[in-house]
Amino acid sequence: MAKRVAIVGAGVSGLASIKCCLEEGLEPTCFERSDDLGGLWRFTEHVEEGRASLYKSVVSNSCKEMSCYSDFPFPEDYPNYVPNSQFLEYLKMYANHFNLLKHIQFKTKVCSVTKCSDFTVSGQWEVVTMHEEKQESAIFDAVMVCTGFLTDPYLPLDSFPGINAFKGQYFHSRQYKHPDIFKDKRVLVIGMGNSGTDIAVEASHLAEKVFLSTTGGGWVISRIFDSGYPWDMMFMTRFQNMLRNSLPTPIVTWLVARKINNWLNHANYGLIPEDRTQLKEFVLNDELPGRIITGKVFIRPSIKEVKENSVMFNNTSKEEPIDIIVFATGYTFAFPFLDESVVKVEDGQASLYKYIFPAHLQKPTLAIIGLIKPLGSMIPTGETQARWAVQVLKGVNKLPPPSVMIEEINARRENKPSWFGLCYCKALQSDYITYIDELLTYINAKPKLFSMLLTDPHLALTVFFGPCSPYQFRLTGPGKWEGARNAIMTQWDRTFKVTKGRVIQESPSPFESFLKLFSFLALLVAIFLIFL
Amino acid sequence: MAKRVAIVGAGVSGLASIKCCLEEGLEPTCFERSDDLGGLWRFTEHVEEGRASLYKSVVSNSCKEMSCYSDFPFPEDYPNYVPNSQFLEYLKMYANHFNLLKHIQFKTKVCSVTKCSDFTVSGQWEVVTMHEEKQESAIFDAVMVCTGFLTDPYLPLDSFPGINAFKGQYFHSRQYKHPDIFKDKRVLVIGMGNSGTDIAVEASHLAEKVFLSTTGGGWVISRIFDSGYPWDMMFMTRFQNMLRNSLPTPIVTWLVARKINNWLNHANYGLIPEDRTQLKEFVLNDELPGRIITGKVFIRPSIKEVKENSVMFNNTSKEEPIDIIVFATGYTFAFPFLDESVVKVEDGQASLYKYIFPAHLQKPTLAIIGLIKPLGSMIPTGETQARWAVQVLKGVNKLPPPSVMIEEINARRENKPSWFGLCYCKALQSDYITYIDELLTYINAKPKLFSMLLTDPHLALTVFFGPCSPYQFRLTGPGKWEGARNAIMTQWDRTFKVTKGRVIQESPSPFESFLKLFSFLALLVAIFLIFL
Repeated sequence: MAKRVAIVGAGVSGLASIKCCLEEGLEPTCFERSDDLGGLWRFTEHVEEGRASLYKSVVSNSCKEMSCYSDFPFPEDYPNYVPNSQFLEYLKMYANHFNLLKHIQFKTKVCSVTKCSDFTVSGQWEVVTMHEEKQESAIFDAVMVCTGFLTDPYLPLDSFPGINAFKGQYFHSRQYKHPDIFKDKRVLVIGMGNSGTDIAVEASHLAEKVFLSTTGGGWVISRIFDSGYPWDMMFMTRFQNMLRNSLPTPIVTWLVARKINNWLNHANYGLIPEDRTQLKEFVLNDELPGRIITGKVFIRPSIKEVKENSVMFNNTSKEEPIDIIVFATGYTFAFPFLDESVVKVEDGQASLYKYIFPAHLQKPTLAIIGLIKPLGSMIPTGETQARWAVQVLKGVNKLPPPSVMIEEINARRENKPSWFGLCYCKALQSDYITYIDELLTYINAKPKLFSMLLTDPHLALTVFFGPCSPYQFRLTGPGKWEGARNAIMTQWDRTFKVTKGRVIQESPSPFESFLKLFSFLALLVAIFLIFL
Repeated sequence: MAKRVAIVGAGVSGLASIKCCLEEGLEPTCFERSDDLGGLWRFTEHVEEGRASLYKSVVSNSCKEMSCYSDFPFPEDYPNYVPNSQFLEYLKMYANHFNLLKHIQFKTKVCSVTKCSDFTVSGQWEVVTMHEEKQESAIFDAVMVCTGFLTDPYLPLDSFPGINAFKGQYFHSRQYKHPDIFKDKRVLVIGMGNSGTDIAVEASHLAEKVFLSTTGGGWVISRIFDSGYPWDMMFMTRFQNMLRNSLPTPIVTWLVARKINNWLNHANYGLIPEDRTQLKEFVLNDELPGRIITGKVFIRPSIKEVKENSVMFNNTSKEEPIDIIVFATGYTFAFPFLDESVVKVEDGQASLYKYIFPAHLQKPTLAIIGLIKPLGSMIPTGETQARWAVQVLKGVNKLPPPSVMIEEINARRENKPSWFGLCYCKALQSDYITYIDELLTYINAKPKLFSMLLTDPHLALTVFFGPCSPYQFRLTGPGKWEGARNAIMTQWDRTFKVTKGRVIQESPSPFESFLKLFSFLALLVAIFLIFL
């Protein structure tokens, strides 16, 4: 049985991993390279090597009821979509509440994680760390790697002919912090992911002109969904997920496109995805359409050529003068402290069983937590991964034989189109509810809807038709949380607590009153006629 | 017949009035107090007395196809919703194209407009002006007053107990120019009209905290309407207007509320109008919901008390620290150069027949142009007013007897609820299409839909079901414009010309292809069965 666990990184997944270890009686030691917890959510004015870098205005893409740890709701007075500074506060509350801090060694870089010589028997790892220029080494029974996938910028300059001749400024979106640099400039943002879109929109408030160049396009949706409800609370329900997964892929794809175009016709706005058969991550942006329609942001296709002070796009021979280019071209990831024989990263994929366990190891004592991009929130995903992983590290749960795991990994790599449900295009992308339910099944914590329907029908219906909020993952099994039921039943109250800052006594409209009166009279007449 | 016409003000209505005079062979002289044309649309860094004042970021609320002069579409490369600097450019293009500039006397303030002693016979006016400290006087056969209603700030400080003790900064929204002043401040904006909402949203990008206080609430809609089409091109159609006006008021009110709440449940966001039976001007804002849901703007009810450094709202006893208060409490209007016996302004209403002509004058030689707030755009409204007014000033069109006019004015003042159609709450508000059609009828320029249906059915259907764009007012009658038909048929092309900056070859989804194939086969089978 594993006892001492090394955890690399004190971000959202690292914190969850510490907590899971503690709950299962393991001894976690978390090594955090920087001087504070929070990982990607900790904004600093300067980019730090080896840590994800935020811009000042980042707001979570997943709402507070959907992106909290499953047994620790956000404070009631937090806004629905949490700005990064408050998100960090929340993580600190979590760490304090569960007493995680004393298990974290700050300013400690993990230099290497290597198998001990008796690994095939012990499954142990030697972890070499560096703290204030002092190197140390220690043996651990297991390792949880929680370093994320947003640290190594992907900057494919070769794909932009002429970029070396460009006399303006250019940088990767990772370097971006504040919009001031764009004042009165002509800005080009390349890449329409969440960062690229955010940056283009933010720049457009100050810049002279902003172009957003995208080759593949994408589905842009608003955080404000139907009737102003948070998008993920509407989209991520077990009911809808079941519907989606039981319909043929072309129909689901068509329905999703129709729904999104209903808000914003993507062809009219130049955003339409080139490949509509495979679903990419949604781009969450409330402001982009308004910035396009008021002539502040211009959508453009890919770049043909960069010149000294201008750029030519692929659809026109006109040169557009440009002062600043921002490459929002995304990230790659790597594990510099791990040998390739442990985890090999190829084409943006790591050979991990269920996105967590290297399949080739003789002992399953190393887990990668948080190396996945679910359509839903990262926090509950990483947390659930950690809950299962800890059971495996302890030996309570067993992994299938390597051949089975390798087969699963290869199938995912091939990314063969399925016949039913949504089809995800990127290696790390996955169906949120299906994936989490799978992990919950392993640890016997998946909500049992059928028996619940008998014992607590109100809860069962809310769980099935309502948002699949993380509290659902704590209703039963190991790690069960007593507050889960109440948290689920009050999730909508918390959602609108802050926004309902002004309440008007609702007087039903005369028309509604009339409708009600009419229905009542019709009912009376019907009863009268029946008993006549 | 009137010959010499004095026009007061060279804003959007003033320019239209000059052009209408020229077209009808009159001699216009336009007096503009400032040193340039454009009126409200000309942004200056400093507030000028007697002229509406813009903030730097103002963008039109009505899209370019709906808010142009009826015979002068915006340039194709203009964005759908035009920022103020481009709007001013457009007005200058208009003035140049129709040679209006030489009829404008800049830096000339109108001091008084008084009836000549023989007014009952001649209908003439003495206009006293001041140019560079030099006073001049001239006699005119008619006067068109085009000074607008956004010059005199309404600042009801008495309604805010404690405001005198407030140690922070406070000012009327008219003084607002740039958001920099809000950096890291706690800001309170009072009033949820278009300016108040814009200012709150803009402040929220820089401020520490922003409260938006509204007593009555309002309907907030997005410029981006269904599927991303401009709101007014969807809302302002003859078909929909006919539907709205033929349904009982409670049903229309309910339907409009339902439509708007479908985008954003106004109760959940604290915005819900207190009085939902009378329609107030829509608040156009694409960003407000996103700013509320991310905790950047907080909606609050009215203010109970202002203290030295804080404010108490009416729903809570908590004091909120505030550094800056912006009173976005709107405007009043007045005609300081006119005697009360000519036009009397009371309770925000002037006694004007069809919002244009004082009813008590012995001769109808004075018209007020642009003193109306239609739900649609101001430019075509003012222009159509001017087209009719000029016919009246010339004597071609006659006004009804004073008693009839006074009756109409009094009815409007009483604002009795009607049984059908939407009910407007403010004195200056009116139903756009109905009002303009009325004026067009007087000058025989209302599109003749029935005969058009026979001669040009495609145009007729576009005019009836499509957006009621101003070109429709130039299809027939005096002032007919040859380009009108083409402008109507190409209005959607121009709308998406700029936003479609990236075009993807549309490949129909497999599902759609399947649907088509299936329909085709079904048709074949049906034909086969029929002829069997």
